[in-house]
Amino acid sequence: MEINKAKEQLDRLERELFAYRYAMSSIGLDARTAAPPETQEGRGVALGILSARNHELMTSEGLWTTVNTLYDNRDEAGPEYFRRSEILRKELSDMRAIPAEEYAGLTKLLSESQYVWHKAKNSSDYASFGPYIDKLVAARKHIYEITRPDMDPFDAALDAFEEGTSREYYDRFFDELRATLVPLIAKVNAAGQPDDSWLKVSYPVEQQRKLSQILMDAFCLDRNHCAITETEHPFTGGPTSQDVRITTHYYEFLPIASVYSVIHEGGHANYELHVDPAYDYNCLKGGTSMAVHESQSRFWENYVGRSREFTDWLWPRFRELFPEQTAGRNADDFYRCINKAQPGLIRTEADELTYPMHIMVRYDLEKKLFAGELTSKDLPDAWNGLYKDYLGVDVPDHARGVLQDIHWSSGSFGYFPTYALGTAYSAQILDTMKKDLDFSALVAADDMKPILAWLTDKLYHFGSLIKPGDVVPSICGAEFSAKFFTDYLTDKFSRLYSL
Amino acid sequence: MEINKAKEQLDRLERELFAYRYAMSSIGLDARTAAPPETQEGRGVALGILSARNHELMTSEGLWTTVNTLYDNRDEAGPEYFRRSEILRKELSDMRAIPAEEYAGLTKLLSESQYVWHKAKNSSDYASFGPYIDKLVAARKHIYEITRPDMDPFDAALDAFEEGTSREYYDRFFDELRATLVPLIAKVNAAGQPDDSWLKVSYPVEQQRKLSQILMDAFCLDRNHCAITETEHPFTGGPTSQDVRITTHYYEFLPIASVYSVIHEGGHANYELHVDPAYDYNCLKGGTSMAVHESQSRFWENYVGRSREFTDWLWPRFRELFPEQTAGRNADDFYRCINKAQPGLIRTEADELTYPMHIMVRYDLEKKLFAGELTSKDLPDAWNGLYKDYLGVDVPDHARGVLQDIHWSSGSFGYFPTYALGTAYSAQILDTMKKDLDFSALVAADDMKPILAWLTDKLYHFGSLIKPGDVVPSICGAEFSAKFFTDYLTDKFSRLYSL
Repeated sequence: MEINKAKEQLDRLERELFAYRYAMSSIGLDARTAAPPETQEGRGVALGILSARNHELMTSEGLWTTVNTLYDNRDEAGPEYFRRSEILRKELSDMRAIPAEEYAGLTKLLSESQYVWHKAKNSSDYASFGPYIDKLVAARKHIYEITRPDMDPFDAALDAFEEGTSREYYDRFFDELRATLVPLIAKVNAAGQPDDSWLKVSYPVEQQRKLSQILMDAFCLDRNHCAITETEHPFTGGPTSQDVRITTHYYEFLPIASVYSVIHEGGHANYELHVDPAYDYNCLKGGTSMAVHESQSRFWENYVGRSREFTDWLWPRFRELFPEQTAGRNADDFYRCINKAQPGLIRTEADELTYPMHIMVRYDLEKKLFAGELTSKDLPDAWNGLYKDYLGVDVPDHARGVLQDIHWSSGSFGYFPTYALGTAYSAQILDTMKKDLDFSALVAADDMKPILAWLTDKLYHFGSLIKPGDVVPSICGAEFSAKFFTDYLTDKFSRLYSL
Repeated sequence: MEINKAKEQLDRLERELFAYRYAMSSIGLDARTAAPPETQEGRGVALGILSARNHELMTSEGLWTTVNTLYDNRDEAGPEYFRRSEILRKELSDMRAIPAEEYAGLTKLLSESQYVWHKAKNSSDYASFGPYIDKLVAARKHIYEITRPDMDPFDAALDAFEEGTSREYYDRFFDELRATLVPLIAKVNAAGQPDDSWLKVSYPVEQQRKLSQILMDAFCLDRNHCAITETEHPFTGGPTSQDVRITTHYYEFLPIASVYSVIHEGGHANYELHVDPAYDYNCLKGGTSMAVHESQSRFWENYVGRSREFTDWLWPRFRELFPEQTAGRNADDFYRCINKAQPGLIRTEADELTYPMHIMVRYDLEKKLFAGELTSKDLPDAWNGLYKDYLGVDVPDHARGVLQDIHWSSGSFGYFPTYALGTAYSAQILDTMKKDLDFSALVAADDMKPILAWLTDKLYHFGSLIKPGDVVPSICGAEFSAKFFTDYLTDKFSRLYSL
């Protein structure tokens, strides 16, 4: 196939994929935000047909030939078309390698296991869900053995969620984290805690909604292209760089939850909103990987949003919306309570300091499950043991233990570590940024535009054109190191807890 | 093709059409309710591709052959498959008859004319939009000349929006209306009006939202399958009988607008919600025609919602939500103000009595435009003259005159009369219902279930299986007559205005 013809063909086919995915995502958004409860049947029929059309196109010979023509002619294709062919080739190879019956079997298994997990979590009944863990690990391993026969299956799993990573990469990272954080957390645990009971009284949701609008302005989220709505679990999504949605969940008695959820999802959104719009209809659009995406949500949430400069800016606005609840408190109380670090049982409720330990527990267990060193039978004990070792807490039941996350029931092994890796990436990026910008002064003045422009220029603009593993080296001029993250945590929490 | 094979094939193809339409409707709903303002580009790309897939399937030889196999073997097909083939055959014949360039030309013309109309309406500038009227009439007429060469083009337009109607059918109907309503309106105009200024003060939107929830309960709208949201213009839509959405628009200073909008759209919704779910994925789903659909929205809005029995039920609930605004008023004031009849300029703001006259103006003008007896140049004068004749009002500008409706700019000629016809249909249906049910007592007690069950049994259940023209004869055992409607209006407004 002639190169220009292949480029045109790829544009056309990717636009068609875009249309099916736009439709499925719109239907999914409606289901999570507006649809009446008992409407799943029609939605299932529509989604089934649309995803079949999408799958047909993804596995078509036409797309395969087009992608390979561009991949095999890198110079003529040019960097953008080559990168598109590279991304798609990997995805298509995987899809084409898996036999249809195996794919159907996995789909059925995942549907069952998620259903069983939901029930099991509600009744803290590990026995019913446990056997699915072994089946899911076996099914995933088998798929990686087919699609990546040259690799260890857990390396393949890690690479599937974060291109270029492996056990070796993560082991080094987590070893560094463990060495610093386990003793640091123990010291914090021994120190006194601030009283945050005043942040756990009634904060009316109507006022919390107003606060979200203030935060959207504070983080330059452009209302012409970004809207906020409410869902059970917060997320960010959107079909193009021109149309990004974030969601939050308001808890009347925990206003800080939505504050940092909005800033976190707003970080994901700002990344998506600033990708080159030329990529809107192809696979270069959006963030380049899970970890790099998380690096940006955590950058805005933690390094900006939980900084003393920002909580000082927020405090008078917060006080104005909630005068009674905040009576007698000051900006120092606000900063300390927001940054209260205390080991707990639930990952999604964890603070900045203890969060990586929750991830480490899961990473250690996934590695053993894939290596055959652990089976579902011994998983809860192993889980509880690691929570004791890493966080010093006793797990009282499986609902607050091994059953708490949806990920494994969805067959996602190797996903969790990206959460911790991304946060560490952005510590290093922040260090570089501070050489160019007066970060503290900008945050103190809520002057986020220069920060956003810097990140857009170095990262956001490129979308998926930049490979995930190239992000830190290209921005920072050095290989990734966990040191920036551990230094940041040590410094911040030593000051906060006068260690 | 073998009949059973054709049935299976039709089921499969209609499900595929269902999926594309579900997707387009979900994307459209999002655009009207939740999408940020500047997101049209990506939506346009996605909708363009999905509608192209839909159009390809609609014009495919496979669907055409399948439909004709069932149509030509009526007995073997059975009533449901035969009716489906009949509905689709008409639609497909039209699509196949129109040359592709003509179809593309019309699409372009409609897009332009709607854009120009929006601007023209905002600046009351008829001169810029006027020429489009002639182009649109010519384009529509030409299409009917191709698709229905045996018919007068305006008869074809009327039949396109309401199967089985014609100029003769509507002329008889409107002649009867005109004879009764013009003198009745003149008498009402000469009588004194109730003071409704207290219903035009501030009614906070938050309280109006609560009232909508009371109304959804009052009209048995099942929250498991029906949700309400807010849009600029209210509408009802939904992919299946299991999933129907209504929308409303709250005006702080006009609470009655949303009350009757919710009841009106709730009427459309109750019709859709009670169609046999066996039709969810084919063309029998939903109401059988524009007029029959409007017969049900108007039944619930006017005959139930504006009755003395219902306003008496609503009054204490309304007063509880708005104690200050309603101080010193009573149920009698409420009923009279809600039913205040006064000729005005704007169709969508018209009361029950004067509404049909707005429709008659448009019908008379459309008929003349199609007959070549009127062109765009003389249209505003003709419009203003008829408003004077029928309603006794002087039109001060084109924005509140000939430019007020979107319909003509969308190429919809022959649509308006269905609004009036439907309201008249339900007057006759109500007369029959009253022989079976103690309608007044049921409404007074807000016991809507028996009314809903009666309508479901006689009409809703059948979806589009019943032909529009058969609705009144099959329910009432008699041909349609406008007398029930004119009698109802004469009786109600003679009492209200002590004529």
